[in-house]
Amino acid sequence: MEIKNILIVDPIDGEYVGDIIIENDIIKQIIKKDNNYYDYILMPGFVDTHTHGYMGVDFMNAPKEDLKRWAELNFSHGVTKFYPTTVSASKKQLKEIVNNFQSILSISGIHLEGPYINKEKKGAQNEAYIYPPKLEDLKEIINENVKLITMAPEVENFFEVIDYLKGNGVIISLGHSNANYELFKKALEKNIIRITHFPNAITSLHHRSIGGVGAGLLEKFKLEMIVDKIHSSPEFIKLVYKTKNIDDIILITDSISATNLEDGEYSLGGLKVIVKDKKATLEDGTIAGSTLTFDDGVRNFYNITQCSLKELAKVSSYNALQNLNIKNEGRIKEGYIANFALLNRDLEIKKTIFHGNIVYEK
Amino acid sequence: MEIKNILIVDPIDGEYVGDIIIENDIIKQIIKKDNNYYDYILMPGFVDTHTHGYMGVDFMNAPKEDLKRWAELNFSHGVTKFYPTTVSASKKQLKEIVNNFQSILSISGIHLEGPYINKEKKGAQNEAYIYPPKLEDLKEIINENVKLITMAPEVENFFEVIDYLKGNGVIISLGHSNANYELFKKALEKNIIRITHFPNAITSLHHRSIGGVGAGLLEKFKLEMIVDKIHSSPEFIKLVYKTKNIDDIILITDSISATNLEDGEYSLGGLKVIVKDKKATLEDGTIAGSTLTFDDGVRNFYNITQCSLKELAKVSSYNALQNLNIKNEGRIKEGYIANFALLNRDLEIKKTIFHGNIVYEK
Repeated sequence: MEIKNILIVDPIDGEYVGDIIIENDIIKQIIKKDNNYYDYILMPGFVDTHTHGYMGVDFMNAPKEDLKRWAELNFSHGVTKFYPTTVSASKKQLKEIVNNFQSILSISGIHLEGPYINKEKKGAQNEAYIYPPKLEDLKEIINENVKLITMAPEVENFFEVIDYLKGNGVIISLGHSNANYELFKKALEKNIIRITHFPNAITSLHHRSIGGVGAGLLEKFKLEMIVDKIHSSPEFIKLVYKTKNIDDIILITDSISATNLEDGEYSLGGLKVIVKDKKATLEDGTIAGSTLTFDDGVRNFYNITQCSLKELAKVSSYNALQNLNIKNEGRIKEGYIANFALLNRDLEIKKTIFHGNIVYEK
Repeated sequence: MEIKNILIVDPIDGEYVGDIIIENDIIKQIIKKDNNYYDYILMPGFVDTHTHGYMGVDFMNAPKEDLKRWAELNFSHGVTKFYPTTVSASKKQLKEIVNNFQSILSISGIHLEGPYINKEKKGAQNEAYIYPPKLEDLKEIINENVKLITMAPEVENFFEVIDYLKGNGVIISLGHSNANYELFKKALEKNIIRITHFPNAITSLHHRSIGGVGAGLLEKFKLEMIVDKIHSSPEFIKLVYKTKNIDDIILITDSISATNLEDGEYSLGGLKVIVKDKKATLEDGTIAGSTLTFDDGVRNFYNITQCSLKELAKVSSYNALQNLNIKNEGRIKEGYIANFALLNRDLEIKKTIFHGNIVYEK
């Protein structure tokens, strides 16, 4: 397959006009052009490392055909890799989900959000299923499908189990945590470098105790961000963009099953969720995940920060892949896997290409 | 006078070894050296634009001889220019203070902190003397001695009186304010570019409403900062240093009459202040100014941020002068006024030179 006269956006080499030749699932050749004329923009396919569901599919109760449908639908948003995310649940249920999981299409692994979090910062997680980690539990639950886990560093046994998780290739992300700056720093010193849906469900910034939010802004943490203008104001997003290195921002959706459906009542981890004007909340008003689609998040980030397309390719794909140690994806460069989102100048998805095949076309 | 083999620190040209020749009160000549050998560091004299008192002197009740003593004592801290600062008081008292004021030595003008602030963010100001500005009051109070005024942008008449203040050469600084981000932004658009003792006594940062603290971090405000490790934690100072342009940080002391005296009971604007371990508070625990000396603040900022000496010269002198539109001071450059702090490598004051004369020597 050839795609001609496109603006190629690589997270390292930047933006330039060219043609691209794909053979099987690999970028075979890139031909740089001297002109600046192009109709469409080619970006590395988007990567969502934190998403609970989409259009009626809820990862906590999703048979294989549901996962396949989810992956197919997600292509329409430019997503070529994503990590379905659990909520806090019983050991039995988590074990079943992990054991029954099979990679399919763009679904590449699991993110466990909880249950090893702090009840005081539970957000929309079900308190009944929040408990501390035990090594023997982890030995039963964790297999090679688990790529990420969100934990609070203050939970009992946290520092005892992190080596087991790391040894099994699981990236730990700090979240749903009441920990102060010092404990975030201590985790960072143990090479735990990621924070879940920053700055939500962590300790806020005060000038005499800068908390998890301050730790995220000041230290070399990589920050998951839901850019739906609901979880954070546009000004806060601007402040993060101003403060952080662009390599340290990872866009996520945190989307739930109500995404792309009508307003109404849904459920998340056994809790009732009300969606009104795209905002999902529990009955008490607590924000309960998002109804954000990945491409909306990408456009929001671009419009709010006025970043470059090169930077946008980092926050929407490359940074997430780097954090997961995936080295042959996320760039538009010869030899890399041909996962792309083809966008118009308004950054609307026109085509999605997955492993060299057109899987979505508008 | 000649000073030889010193590390000259200019806020624009940076750091280099040289000799300096002073004639009368002016830097006549600088001779740059090829070697890197030096014993002492020469910085532009420090400028404190927010200070209520020192060693028993309280600006609200200070006869002329007290002001002279204050200026002389302040030379021992490297301060060659400062602006005694009022607290909220009756129109009558403020008018008297302003009318009776005379510049003397390094005392160059007045900073009015209040009374046009928000009672909800009064800090250690006396609520009985907080009231909105009226143009007729300002016409009675303001004269050429008033160089700075701290006001809350949400007070009645704020946007009606700012042109009068600006027209009379008064720099407005936002502070003791409950205003949200949007109102800070609106003031910024009116070219009000300074925030008083950031981030104290303004609205805190939340990720869905970033407040005065968020406005200060995100927008092009110049921030007064008390770096005593009491008003803000070292991590917050680091975060400000990371986030802001170095040109936008102005060190102040906010010192009160208890500074450099023993722990005990003092007063500030008619309120009882208790000083314990250098921390000054009202009886209810509210922080009540500082007991910081300027050179301690300079050393704290340097040690916390690990900034360059060039940057240190900006935050301790140049930035404050630029903000006040004073153009012939604050640099070590031919033609500039010879106001210097001579420091050892631990940044302790060894000599202070004011208008070409040694006014302090250790």
